[in-house]
Amino acid sequence: MPTDTPQPSFVLVRPQMGENIGAAARAMWNFGLDRMRVVDPRDGWPNQRAVAMASGAGRLLDEAMLTPDLPTALDDCSFVFATTARPRGLTKPVYTPEQAMKEANARVKAGEKVAVMFGPERAGLENEDIARANAIISVPVNPEFASLNLGQCVLLCAYEWSRQTMSAEPMNYELAGTEWASAIEVEKLANHYEERLEEAGFFFPETKAENMKTNLRNFWSRMPLTRADAQILHGVLRQMVRWKERG
Amino acid sequence: MPTDTPQPSFVLVRPQMGENIGAAARAMWNFGLDRMRVVDPRDGWPNQRAVAMASGAGRLLDEAMLTPDLPTALDDCSFVFATTARPRGLTKPVYTPEQAMKEANARVKAGEKVAVMFGPERAGLENEDIARANAIISVPVNPEFASLNLGQCVLLCAYEWSRQTMSAEPMNYELAGTEWASAIEVEKLANHYEERLEEAGFFFPETKAENMKTNLRNFWSRMPLTRADAQILHGVLRQMVRWKERG
Repeated sequence: MPTDTPQPSFVLVRPQMGENIGAAARAMWNFGLDRMRVVDPRDGWPNQRAVAMASGAGRLLDEAMLTPDLPTALDDCSFVFATTARPRGLTKPVYTPEQAMKEANARVKAGEKVAVMFGPERAGLENEDIARANAIISVPVNPEFASLNLGQCVLLCAYEWSRQTMSAEPMNYELAGTEWASAIEVEKLANHYEERLEEAGFFFPETKAENMKTNLRNFWSRMPLTRADAQILHGVLRQMVRWKERG
Repeated sequence: MPTDTPQPSFVLVRPQMGENIGAAARAMWNFGLDRMRVVDPRDGWPNQRAVAMASGAGRLLDEAMLTPDLPTALDDCSFVFATTARPRGLTKPVYTPEQAMKEANARVKAGEKVAVMFGPERAGLENEDIARANAIISVPVNPEFASLNLGQCVLLCAYEWSRQTMSAEPMNYELAGTEWASAIEVEKLANHYEERLEEAGFFFPETKAENMKTNLRNFWSRMPLTRADAQILHGVLRQMVRWKERG
């Protein structure tokens, strides 16, 4: 069963190698997309090489809409993108994957059906295919070296879809079973160091002492310290004092 | 010769399959990155399978820095990212590729040397490797299906680097030898239609006529019309009138 998340369909137009169809399925499902349409695949359907390559994303192939021609595959879609590597002499807006998936997201949210077409491996989409699209997606690659294959193009579009639809998350932090040190804990740590360093004659000469202390406080508060870090740093200092006291 | 564009180095740590090393080189060079470092590759160096797969990006392999261990590869770097699929029980900031490449761009611009580590295909980076990183990059994939391979992970990071460093371009439009219709041309087109439709009794009943005309004007100005489009639309209307006049 496909997920019920509204999303664009990815349409593979006359794909050639089963491996690439499988790779496209994996690329899609990595980013939560599971509506594949397949137009006139060269080696028939189902395709065992595609199934083998898709592994955990095989469901997308089982559920793919298979059509003999492109118009049938696009029948219910109100906005269609065509991916292509180079200008094709057609008057058409050209989107980056980012711009395209932003637009797709807005349209899908508004209840529209959106499709993204990907051409056959060797030659890409024909102008006749592209003429059926509302807009072009072109990945801005190095002009000296443009060698994205079908699976990579699907991957980048799927990634951008996912990026556009995820809520912008703040940066995560893996805390590995500890918590951030609270302000009072950082304060205690700073005090501990300041006191011992004072005893140790660190803040010298007198005229610079205040400035040195401020810098040290600032250092502690700039650090992203966890409770575990604070405990370790207390321990380090205690150990140094113990070592000194042992003489 | 490497390009002189300041950029991060991509460090392949103990890569296994030559094909994947070659695919990583292609993925990088697609987005203008050409600083590869290779740590202790399983099958030695140079690797013929890598060279065959890299094709047009083979220069990256020729110029790659080969090191026997990770510390040597990271020697001159002041900020290091580790790509990893899952939490590793280490306290470390976790970036999306987008956040990471934004950070990398800022640091590289400031003259820092930045590295991004990618682990061996089967198991990924070891905790011992990750401990040498300042931060983690984790691609936010479908939690039900996370199956990015080495080449795909390199591709997404290289793509994000390119996205972060390109000036935000406005959407392009391929115009195929024509130009946008100017306002006066759109005006003439609107007038032409309004006049003929007026004659044809289109604006009826009288009470709604003004509103219908406004809607029609609005339609023409909403359309992204080229000069060629305008000529065609004039032609369509002339032909209809001719057809009518022929009786």
